[in-house]
Amino acid sequence: MFKYLKQLQYPINIKKKDLRMAKYLVTQYGGSNGELGAALRYLNQRLTMPDNKGKALLNDIGTEELGHVEMLETMIYQLMKDATLEEIKAAGLDAHYAEHAKALYPTDANGVPFAVNYFATTGDPLADLSEDMSAEQKARAVYENLIDLTDDPDVIGPLLWLRQREIVHYARFKELFEEYEKKIKNGNNSISPKNNIANSYPQEYLMNNFVTMNYENFM
Amino acid sequence: MFKYLKQLQYPINIKKKDLRMAKYLVTQYGGSNGELGAALRYLNQRLTMPDNKGKALLNDIGTEELGHVEMLETMIYQLMKDATLEEIKAAGLDAHYAEHAKALYPTDANGVPFAVNYFATTGDPLADLSEDMSAEQKARAVYENLIDLTDDPDVIGPLLWLRQREIVHYARFKELFEEYEKKIKNGNNSISPKNNIANSYPQEYLMNNFVTMNYENFM
Amino acid sequence: MFKYLKQLQYPINIKKKDLRMAKYLVTQYGGSNGELGAALRYLNQRLTMPDNKGKALLNDIGTEELGHVEMLETMIYQLMKDATLEEIKAAGLDAHYAEHAKALYPTDANGVPFAVNYFATTGDPLADLSEDMSAEQKARAVYENLIDLTDDPDVIGPLLWLRQREIVHYARFKELFEEYEKKIKNGNNSISPKNNIANSYPQEYLMNNFVTMNYENFM
Amino acid sequence: MFKYLKQLQYPINIKKKDLRMAKYLVTQYGGSNGELGAALRYLNQRLTMPDNKGKALLNDIGTEELGHVEMLETMIYQLMKDATLEEIKAAGLDAHYAEHAKALYPTDANGVPFAVNYFATTGDPLADLSEDMSAEQKARAVYENLIDLTDDPDVIGPLLWLRQREIVHYARFKELFEEYEKKIKNGNNSISPKNNIANSYPQEYLMNNFVTMNYENFM
Amino acid sequence: MFKYLKQLQYPINIKKKDLRMAKYLVTQYGGSNGELGAALRYLNQRLTMPDNKGKALLNDIGTEELGHVEMLETMIYQLMKDATLEEIKAAGLDAHYAEHAKALYPTDANGVPFAVNYFATTGDPLADLSEDMSAEQKARAVYENLIDLTDDPDVIGPLLWLRQREIVHYARFKELFEEYEKKIKNGNNSISPKNNIANSYPQEYLMNNFVTMNYENFM
Amino acid sequence: MFKYLKQLQYPINIKKKDLRMAKYLVTQYGGSNGELGAALRYLNQRLTMPDNKGKALLNDIGTEELGHVEMLETMIYQLMKDATLEEIKAAGLDAHYAEHAKALYPTDANGVPFAVNYFATTGDPLADLSEDMSAEQKARAVYENLIDLTDDPDVIGPLLWLRQREIVHYARFKELFEEYEKKIKNGNNSISPKNNIANSYPQEYLMNNFVTMNYENFM
Repeated sequence: MFKYLKQLQYPINIKKKDLRMAKYLVTQYGGSNGELGAALRYLNQRLTMPDNKGKALLNDIGTEELGHVEMLETMIYQLMKDATLEEIKAAGLDAHYAEHAKALYPTDANGVPFAVNYFATTGDPLADLSEDMSAEQKARAVYENLIDLTDDPDVIGPLLWLRQREIVHYARFKELFEEYEKKIKNGNNSISPKNNIANSYPQEYLMNNFVTMNYENFM
Repeated sequence: MFKYLKQLQYPINIKKKDLRMAKYLVTQYGGSNGELGAALRYLNQRLTMPDNKGKALLNDIGTEELGHVEMLETMIYQLMKDATLEEIKAAGLDAHYAEHAKALYPTDANGVPFAVNYFATTGDPLADLSEDMSAEQKARAVYENLIDLTDDPDVIGPLLWLRQREIVHYARFKELFEEYEKKIKNGNNSISPKNNIANSYPQEYLMNNFVTMNYENFM
Repeated sequence: MFKYLKQLQYPINIKKKDLRMAKYLVTQYGGSNGELGAALRYLNQRLTMPDNKGKALLNDIGTEELGHVEMLETMIYQLMKDATLEEIKAAGLDAHYAEHAKALYPTDANGVPFAVNYFATTGDPLADLSEDMSAEQKARAVYENLIDLTDDPDVIGPLLWLRQREIVHYARFKELFEEYEKKIKNGNNSISPKNNIANSYPQEYLMNNFVTMNYENFM
Repeated sequence: MFKYLKQLQYPINIKKKDLRMAKYLVTQYGGSNGELGAALRYLNQRLTMPDNKGKALLNDIGTEELGHVEMLETMIYQLMKDATLEEIKAAGLDAHYAEHAKALYPTDANGVPFAVNYFATTGDPLADLSEDMSAEQKARAVYENLIDLTDDPDVIGPLLWLRQREIVHYARFKELFEEYEKKIKNGNNSISPKNNIANSYPQEYLMNNFVTMNYENFM
Repeated sequence: MFKYLKQLQYPINIKKKDLRMAKYLVTQYGGSNGELGAALRYLNQRLTMPDNKGKALLNDIGTEELGHVEMLETMIYQLMKDATLEEIKAAGLDAHYAEHAKALYPTDANGVPFAVNYFATTGDPLADLSEDMSAEQKARAVYENLIDLTDDPDVIGPLLWLRQREIVHYARFKELFEEYEKKIKNGNNSISPKNNIANSYPQEYLMNNFVTMNYENFM
Repeated sequence: MFKYLKQLQYPINIKKKDLRMAKYLVTQYGGSNGELGAALRYLNQRLTMPDNKGKALLNDIGTEELGHVEMLETMIYQLMKDATLEEIKAAGLDAHYAEHAKALYPTDANGVPFAVNYFATTGDPLADLSEDMSAEQKARAVYENLIDLTDDPDVIGPLLWLRQREIVHYARFKELFEEYEKKIKNGNNSISPKNNIANSYPQEYLMNNFVTMNYENFM
């Protein structure tokens, strides 16, 4: 279970309204590569990790991402809360206003509601960890886009910190991926048993590769 | 931010595999009236509640629901974890297995992925709280359906407890709804300012109700 | 079955083009809290209401909401029909135009297509009626947002009337909710039989509430 | 606006429970080619038809389809209403039961909720009418699949009648399509003005067709 | 299988940035009536066509549409690739940029991701071919809207060519539809066997048409 | 553009009907980790790769995946084509039959239609390539699940071959990922320019990491 602590993971104190930025930031809340998806991805995958180390890593990073979700909620709320109706219209947030007034709602920057098909769980630790590494890379890229779109240091600060966390998480997931990969190579059947079964089939199944893809230059 | 506590809100200790039940329970995890939607609904609505009392109530119930999500994850995991492939096929969980093996994934009982359009945020405290009261009623009804579908006391126990929490939350949301409603009637403009504006329009707008719906008996 | 009457429920006669307003109004047509969802919600729930009174109420309000759908269609059509391409571009309706020209299509204000997961049916009369009460509150709140976004009396008039209908419907649903609630308390098993079964379980299931949520102040 | 008539378009009186059939029929209610989509498609397209004849045709068929929706609701309700829990489980309707008990909900036969992206509106009368002709053909094909799946005359009767209506509607849409097509050929610019503009571009744009598709035999 | 040829079907060489146009064109890539849906529709339907001619037609047009997808990708890419951040903001592509930078992604013009429920497969050749005819008509209409929205001949050229291909495909689908329709009338049971079964039921099923729809004038 | 070759990439010749297997295989066609998503992912990402090598790799693997899509279509078609209605019912494919008869349709194994939010494009080559590596790992895992669910060598053969291709593709994507990563470390700004900007911000932004996540053991 979770206990709420009355503290943000990184302090947010945005003094200047910026509704366009609120509109962009929402994508890192409820968009394809956002923090809500990240939190749910890891908390869903943890129970089927093959050992306690894997479970703990996913549990802790998943819990941390819940705190990132809250940071983004706070940023969006602060950027939007004192806006007049005219400012909301000018920034293109009027579509949001019609439905939600100034309330938060997890969507991407186009207003498409969050759905869990943004992430996958396979029960295979290598596949799940490579999904996680990829999620951290994509979130890093989106934070770089977002930093590009503002010059307010009160916004840039938390975004840089969040980007940094993605880099740290990526490294942690990569470590564990490589540890499991090595164990599988060394014949440890407990990590990914079906992988071993598939590898045990005779090679002639794979012979008849009728196509030679030549990866030639494009255009 | 959130801290993870190594404890479930209510102990789960299911000793008997039951894959059909796992398939049903998932709907209260990632379905329309499930706990994941509840948690996200309340945590999204809290910041636009009109006072600290409202914010605290939504924050605390939202946090508690994150713990309910985990209870359901644990129940599904325990019901499924020792199943053989034959049992998985017989229970109709083979479609889940093809994609996820035994990993968790938030869907409804038909396998439709969770999406946030199961809930709404309006920024209007009466509308949001009535959405919350409704969510608790619907979750209660689903728990009653689920209790109907099993006779394993290890499953019934946590389900009854979870149902009870919905009843408690409903009561708390109703209390606050009525408090706000009373304040509005007493002329407190801070709760729902637009409501007041709309009410200030002259009554002739409403006169020309050309249709008399008679709510007659059906069929 | 339904018979079409050549009359709108409330007269619509908008003389001034307003494409921004057309874009906002669509959310009350095909958005999360809109009239199309309301009509389908009630018409879906009616057959499983526990008595003829409930069936009739849902049938009649559902039928009325079909007429509200038509009012919104008419408003959007009138606001848009004489617009030039330049005006459409300036109002941000160009994305709609590329796909639909000036035809109607039920989406929210961001262009997300209507889907029935905006509403629920549970077969439990208390849960369904509280969903309905909530739907009316949310629609009221959206109408207030929409009234906020215009100053054209030809638009405000029908919106005020529609808002008023939501208030009336809310009252009717509340009445029936309270009637059913009272019957259940008085031991009438026909309203919500599973509720009674769940309540018959011994209290010790509910004892071990390990967590005391304290609903403390937020932040 | 619509008036509800206490009469089904074709009498439904199913005496034999058949839960499998209930599960299939739902696809013609809330599935891709179902009656709900048909009703909404026509009622959405009517206002942008180029003349009163087109508007009237779409309005009347759209209104009739609302009555077909009700016929399917009634069939599903009658097939399901006396089922025991064991029968529901055996028929694979348990996933529906967990969420909805015996209430109706518009989905396809797999439980995927209805969404309006099953249909299109383009504002172009030829395109809209060909979409409508296609919708009637697809609905006819689905009714034939459904007739295949039962041998209960109480079910076959209404399905044959509904299939027949699709054939009649197809003929009516085809008539109007051909009337408009002829008007366009005769230089009537009011039907589809953009079509004329596009045709006015010089032919050299179309010359450089670098690919000769040869529609050769497959495999 | 498919072989990639280093050539576009029609040459694209757009010299002028136009971000608004990029935003509109995407709808013909990943929108409801777009080329991606067309390609997948035909390639999905081909294997269940009743003869080799039908299979070949759908296979070849489906393959050609994959080339149209690439043309649209190339147009969008060229229109967007040299844009500055300020230009992206001004054109309302900032929401796309936050998530995707300048990468392609198949959505409609509002940013709603492509989904296959934009098309249907029924296994009935008449129904499938009428769906295909309708798809070509709708795509033609959207190309006309798009031509309306630009005056750059480098953009108009390929759009006119693509529109022309829709007209050609429509004619080919219509030919085959009529050929199959004739065969069915002549008693050829292999085209649509269930159609014949349904037609063999006695006419009294269809007698009791209680409703006379009168297709009267609208409003 | 693409040219169709009348040859499958790997021969498919399934002699034994197996409808359950058809139901599972569809998930690798239109499910979250399936071949359709893979093909579209790579063909979408190719144009924004930073050099010709990257463009060519994504183009060629994307084209190959279109051939894998066709292999899965052929397998599903062969497994299903001679089935009787009784066999279809027994295998739980009746829901598919009601809507599609025996036609193909890209869904996951639960019948949820394919949507492109199963994949992402970011315009950042490291993020896109890590998404691609992850996609190949997940597809490998699903192929292992599918091999688990059958013992027909006519099915296992193509599945093993397809799984092998995922392993090969993973290796090719990893090579390119590491090449780009090295170039970035060596100061090559052309690969991922925004990455460099973000790294240029002073370290004090990252100092105030208030939370020490301790990645402790779980439960």
